[in-house]
Amino acid sequence: MKIIKQISDMQRVIKIEKQQGKKIGFVPTMGFLHEGHQTLLQEARKNNDIVVLSIFVNPLQFGPNEDLDAYPRDFERDEEIAKLRGVDFLFYPSVEEMYKENRTTIIKVEQRVDVLCGKHRPGHFDGVATVVMKLFQIVSPDAAYFGMKDAQQVAVIEGLITDYHLPIELVKVGTVREEDGLAKSSRNVYLTEEERTKAPSLYKSLTLGKSLLEDGEKVHTVKQKMEEDILLQTGYKAEYVEIYAYPTLQELEKVKEAESVIIAIAVKFSKARLIDNIVFSYNKGE
Amino acid sequence: MKIIKQISDMQRVIKIEKQQGKKIGFVPTMGFLHEGHQTLLQEARKNNDIVVLSIFVNPLQFGPNEDLDAYPRDFERDEEIAKLRGVDFLFYPSVEEMYKENRTTIIKVEQRVDVLCGKHRPGHFDGVATVVMKLFQIVSPDAAYFGMKDAQQVAVIEGLITDYHLPIELVKVGTVREEDGLAKSSRNVYLTEEERTKAPSLYKSLTLGKSLLEDGEKVHTVKQKMEEDILLQTGYKAEYVEIYAYPTLQELEKVKEAESVIIAIAVKFSKARLIDNIVFSYNKGE
Repeated sequence: MKIIKQISDMQRVIKIEKQQGKKIGFVPTMGFLHEGHQTLLQEARKNNDIVVLSIFVNPLQFGPNEDLDAYPRDFERDEEIAKLRGVDFLFYPSVEEMYKENRTTIIKVEQRVDVLCGKHRPGHFDGVATVVMKLFQIVSPDAAYFGMKDAQQVAVIEGLITDYHLPIELVKVGTVREEDGLAKSSRNVYLTEEERTKAPSLYKSLTLGKSLLEDGEKVHTVKQKMEEDILLQTGYKAEYVEIYAYPTLQELEKVKEAESVIIAIAVKFSKARLIDNIVFSYNKGE
Repeated sequence: MKIIKQISDMQRVIKIEKQQGKKIGFVPTMGFLHEGHQTLLQEARKNNDIVVLSIFVNPLQFGPNEDLDAYPRDFERDEEIAKLRGVDFLFYPSVEEMYKENRTTIIKVEQRVDVLCGKHRPGHFDGVATVVMKLFQIVSPDAAYFGMKDAQQVAVIEGLITDYHLPIELVKVGTVREEDGLAKSSRNVYLTEEERTKAPSLYKSLTLGKSLLEDGEKVHTVKQKMEEDILLQTGYKAEYVEIYAYPTLQELEKVKEAESVIIAIAVKFSKARLIDNIVFSYNKGE
């Protein structure tokens, strides 16, 4: 595995690989790799000749009240994981390298961001879209791997790829779960022992919502029942329970044709704020 | 010459050419080709294996009060010119093809746009940057050709290329002039016979400004003298006379290191609004 810190070096080695007809799989991350990331790397390794992992904590996607400096970092551990997972190139640029010249533009995300977590983080997805476009131009991947745990981020990236006709396959990798259904997350360690026994009920609420919706219940009713269920099972009031068409993130009522639906929830436990979602195909006419 | 209307077809043929190691030169236009465009095509033909010309009148860069429908079009004549100039692929997509899916993002240009013509056309350069990014991703050029007649547009594109690390050489082609110095423009035909004899004084004013600046005159004084000169020579008050560092388009006083300078003017004659500029290297310390 080769660690690359300069943009021009990364572009040069990729150009050589592509000239040899190699297929490039790309996993962009902010590092501090957990099992979710490892699943992305595994998928990329299975289906590509070359696997590129990027680790870059992107200042542009942090709000003024979000603590960029406190974001967890452990490069040595990440490097070990990358090696074990068969990464060929680990792209690890500095902030100065990525934002060397004065930035003159930003990619403004105008759709899919006024709901779910985006509602509470103005500008966050502009920062995501801008850095992902930069990374895509640096790495020129044939396929890029993103985890559906961050379903809204995936929807934004899907819009970016469509808007600019990027010849990149977006591979959406399903959320990795514990055996009891709890979505894996670095934040799970902040749960108390008691909370940990209750946390799997989030996923159960999602599947409850799914079956209610499939049984023809109205969106409003489904949300209400899920909210009640979450309060009953965890003792906490859900921060949000939302149901939208996916990936457009428009209200289901406004969607004419059959597409996918997302049910997403956020619950703040004593210390850990957990989010989870399920996306499934949905035919309104049925 | 092959005319291509579908994005996917354009990407497919380019991929084949690139696999054969061909160098792609790209001239993006809104059609109604004049001699300025022909110079761009000539330059592209000289220095590339494959020349791609795009003709697309981009709705996104027209303001609500700017008449998109009145923009002049003559595809048959453009096609003839393209053939004569040795174009290999003429990319000619419809608006529906370019904006097929609901757009979810826009590239917001945050620098270099609050001066010159950009000041009076809010959002114009967002539209330019967004469509040029789309075209760059469709055509994947090694070199892209732009005319310095639109110096501010060139500055914006230069920012775009830098921001997203695009592996594209930006070739800035000098303004083509009549023998008497008048910048060639489709709008020159709207000048009266008398105005036509006076119009070359615009370029003379620019060269006057340049020598004053090089002689150490203050920016404020140079602008004043140019304004007087333009009024005296043409009988019209200049819409603007502006002097900035180039391509950053910041005030010269704020620029620390030696770089280029632009002197730009706009003059509204009875019917025709003419713009012109000169860019030259400038060392403040001298």
